[in-house]
Amino acid sequence: MVDKYEKIIELAKRRGFLWPSFELYGGTAGFYDYGPLGAMLKRRIENVWRDIFVINEGYYEIEAPTIGIEDIFIASGHVGGFSDPLTECQKCHEDFRADHLVQNIVDMPDTLSADELTEIINKNNIRCPECGGKLGNVYEFNLMFRTSIGPGSKRAGYLRPETAQAMFVDFPRLLKFYRDHLPFGATQIGKAYRNEISPRQGVIRLREFTQAEAEIFIDPRNKTHPGFKEIADIVLNFYSQEGQINGESQQISIGAAVNTGIIAHEFLGYCLAITYRYLTRVGVSPEKLRFRQHMKDEMAHYAADCWDAEILSDRFGWIEVVGIADRTDYDLKAHAKQSETDLTVYVPYDRPKKVERFVVKPNMAALGPRFKGKAGKIANALKALRQEELSGEFIELTIDSEHIKLEKDAVVFETVTEEIHGENIIPHVIEPSFGIDRIMYSLLEHSYFEEKAIEEGEEDEVRIVLRLPPQVAPVQAAVLPLLTREKLIKPAIEIIESLRKAGILVTFDDSGTIGRRYRRNDEIGTPYSITVDYQTLEDGTVTIRERDSMGQVRASMSDIADNICDLIYRGKSFGNAGRRV
Amino acid sequence: MVDKYEKIIELAKRRGFLWPSFELYGGTAGFYDYGPLGAMLKRRIENVWRDIFVINEGYYEIEAPTIGIEDIFIASGHVGGFSDPLTECQKCHEDFRADHLVQNIVDMPDTLSADELTEIINKNNIRCPECGGKLGNVYEFNLMFRTSIGPGSKRAGYLRPETAQAMFVDFPRLLKFYRDHLPFGATQIGKAYRNEISPRQGVIRLREFTQAEAEIFIDPRNKTHPGFKEIADIVLNFYSQEGQINGESQQISIGAAVNTGIIAHEFLGYCLAITYRYLTRVGVSPEKLRFRQHMKDEMAHYAADCWDAEILSDRFGWIEVVGIADRTDYDLKAHAKQSETDLTVYVPYDRPKKVERFVVKPNMAALGPRFKGKAGKIANALKALRQEELSGEFIELTIDSEHIKLEKDAVVFETVTEEIHGENIIPHVIEPSFGIDRIMYSLLEHSYFEEKAIEEGEEDEVRIVLRLPPQVAPVQAAVLPLLTREKLIKPAIEIIESLRKAGILVTFDDSGTIGRRYRRNDEIGTPYSITVDYQTLEDGTVTIRERDSMGQVRASMSDIADNICDLIYRGKSFGNAGRRV
Repeated sequence: MVDKYEKIIELAKRRGFLWPSFELYGGTAGFYDYGPLGAMLKRRIENVWRDIFVINEGYYEIEAPTIGIEDIFIASGHVGGFSDPLTECQKCHEDFRADHLVQNIVDMPDTLSADELTEIINKNNIRCPECGGKLGNVYEFNLMFRTSIGPGSKRAGYLRPETAQAMFVDFPRLLKFYRDHLPFGATQIGKAYRNEISPRQGVIRLREFTQAEAEIFIDPRNKTHPGFKEIADIVLNFYSQEGQINGESQQISIGAAVNTGIIAHEFLGYCLAITYRYLTRVGVSPEKLRFRQHMKDEMAHYAADCWDAEILSDRFGWIEVVGIADRTDYDLKAHAKQSETDLTVYVPYDRPKKVERFVVKPNMAALGPRFKGKAGKIANALKALRQEELSGEFIELTIDSEHIKLEKDAVVFETVTEEIHGENIIPHVIEPSFGIDRIMYSLLEHSYFEEKAIEEGEEDEVRIVLRLPPQVAPVQAAVLPLLTREKLIKPAIEIIESLRKAGILVTFDDSGTIGRRYRRNDEIGTPYSITVDYQTLEDGTVTIRERDSMGQVRASMSDIADNICDLIYRGKSFGNAGRRV
Repeated sequence: MVDKYEKIIELAKRRGFLWPSFELYGGTAGFYDYGPLGAMLKRRIENVWRDIFVINEGYYEIEAPTIGIEDIFIASGHVGGFSDPLTECQKCHEDFRADHLVQNIVDMPDTLSADELTEIINKNNIRCPECGGKLGNVYEFNLMFRTSIGPGSKRAGYLRPETAQAMFVDFPRLLKFYRDHLPFGATQIGKAYRNEISPRQGVIRLREFTQAEAEIFIDPRNKTHPGFKEIADIVLNFYSQEGQINGESQQISIGAAVNTGIIAHEFLGYCLAITYRYLTRVGVSPEKLRFRQHMKDEMAHYAADCWDAEILSDRFGWIEVVGIADRTDYDLKAHAKQSETDLTVYVPYDRPKKVERFVVKPNMAALGPRFKGKAGKIANALKALRQEELSGEFIELTIDSEHIKLEKDAVVFETVTEEIHGENIIPHVIEPSFGIDRIMYSLLEHSYFEEKAIEEGEEDEVRIVLRLPPQVAPVQAAVLPLLTREKLIKPAIEIIESLRKAGILVTFDDSGTIGRRYRRNDEIGTPYSITVDYQTLEDGTVTIRERDSMGQVRASMSDIADNICDLIYRGKSFGNAGRRV
């Protein structure tokens, strides 16, 4: 039986959403091309992301190179720890993930070392799944694509395994851009790379993929969010740590989840809310979406809390499409250390604080003549003394193994009150990280429907329809002259020109029955079809057909571009687009 | 003296347009980050490109991986020939372009072989420009970044040196997408890579850069363009082959240039026109733009004609930002050969053609019994005979070195008239190729002005203003409460929310005098500043200030989002935005 995945991939290939890369040369696993419709759909879902994160939240986008230098990935830990255990068949030289080969034999194979995996493979006599050959020793294979910058191998370069690092590396510049005020955030949408050992899950596991990431730098002492009240009532499907232990998810409001400590704090709760809004706006079915908390042993040691948005797929089950983490100060600390740079932020207090400080002033007039060249060292040692060390009759010091005894008048000391106006802190990082390719595949799956439909004389056939939200559908309108006649084509061309001028992606189709042409457009998710008929020549009206309801209205051709823009972008209801036919 | 380039780079760094990449780790030549304003400006000029090429011309965009496999770049010639001559200092191990080191000694050093360059370096005792050390033998260094796909070095991967190749590799899929009809085109905007030996021109010569390319597949027998009439009157600054010999460019219409044979054909002329429209729309000064034809010895051997759009830069002189070439059938032929795939297109004739064909039919009833197993071979040999070989009394053949003599009745032959309905052709490729990074730098340069301005009490100071077209300016509106008072801030926030809802990128600024805030926005090119003052509280109006004229109007706050959108996107004049103040 052909499952839904196969149907969608067939449609995606045939109509130009997704094509295996390098197909002309036999293809290579882990690479996909976005065809004409796929690239447009992808662009639109990226633009909705920008609308939410950049325009509305105010986290400006940056664009850094995809190639990075070694220092960055030493700091991030990718040089040391971004690897999978690999074993190579000694006979056919195929490579395999060792942890995958033993997954039916041991629990949690991903926690085992290379040596442990080798031992299990040998003890259980696991052979090559392809040819039955003997498997070699397991070793850790680094998943970064490596290259060299400039001639020779003087300077290693890596294709970035995530877009996030650029926001950390640019932190000093970003801090200045935001005029030294926390919180602030920066985003990036771009390619990231992971040199998978042998990817076998089509578009779900790519060697080159697109991420949309935000790094939001906040004051660790204040993890509230000013917009929290507005989103607190949104009810999500939570699959918390406790829920996973009990095997059940719960539908509660974000406000309740924060109040009861299921979510660590408001800021993370807010990020879950905008993630939910984003995913459902681009077309993910809310009932196939859940937020799963990382279990304690799964979470990075430095993380305060971490949630994945997971989408239910027919073929793959629940797949992770977004990760939302409170990474604390881990990343900035790591880069501060590697670069030997101060990456703190000076945060002024609302009101200056008064603090008492003990100050020792050496009496140089007395020390100088007596100790000569050694006076400086003695003065410094005196300054470092605590109050209780000055309470005796004499002051005793050891300088360069020499014992020195001083009268009390060698120093003056006092307690002064100082005003402190602020302090330097290392911001914490909240990171919502989106996998655009998986989201796009999920949309195709969630919007794919087959239904019996009778329309315009096409009898009782199955109609395939992609119910994509109009604002992300790649082709936004089809213009169809009822018949291939010059006098019907002319107004059709005029309509196309006015729609294009308004930035609408439009197709022209005059081949086959009108019913066939509707079907062709249903299959790629075109939300509106505009038909020019003989009545158009009489009264200047056209029909607009809505993809989902197959309902039709007659509307004026003179303001057709505004009408279509209102339908797509401004929430106009189809009933208000014209007179029902 | 600080030149314009230094001023612009200083501004670009300070305000967040361009940052040297990996600055935290000392930076690496040939890499730049787009900061928050730069990335937004870049995105907008890419979107204008899409509006022209994708939405209006109908050349759909695709998105292929940045990593490519070796076959592709063998076919494209990059594995064999994409290199620069390199010499390494034996002492300090710095690398240098050998052709650059000898450019004051010989003419056209880029035409010399590695051995010839070595000889010139030795003969002239050219030493390392950095340390004076002896230079090593020159060799050709391939400029593609190389990596490996999957573990080990089984499969080479290269970072693409241009986006173009994906459109050739996807040609069979694209042809089906466009339902087998020529002409059609596909575009791509994305990263491309060139592992420069030692780049020294800042943002003008990057190791990782962004291209926007279109590959338009046309019928080689018809290089007209249906839209040519509409653009024929556009006058461009042409620097033709002849003009370069005479040292002068000429201002003529595209129609005249095609008619007089300066431009090879209409289709190229049309591409020059949309290139001109694109560049001037995003903000390139028309008087600093010219179209330079490649000289015969500079053009690729297969190209029919090639033009560069060049922009005049203060620091760099005329720099190439766009290349527009008729590449004939070179690319498709090369990939057809490398992949052993037919990449022709069947083109039906308007009317079937009648052709006469000579047909030989062997008489198997006679040949079979006589020659048994050999009859088939003999029949094939007979079918291949030409009419004149059948004119004698006998037919003589040699099959497997055996001489065979046949009577004339061994065959029947006749001339038949057949109808041919079309033929298979290899399309020609028209390629407009845009360097987005250079265009973006040029915009900053062309839009940068320093002027004495007196406004709002800021006396007689120099105002820096980026006169970017409103539709590409990164920040589109600034909202400024006249004073930091709760009652002025509240309406300001309302305005911000309504603008954001309409997709407008807006900033809020309440620090410093109003004049200072205008200046801050002028410097980054914000086209409109909206000021909330006490009159706002009385009558619900605000002032809108136009960046370029510094003129102000009062307009209603209730429809401010529509008003600003009309100004930015729909060509509304500022005078119609409100009542002059």
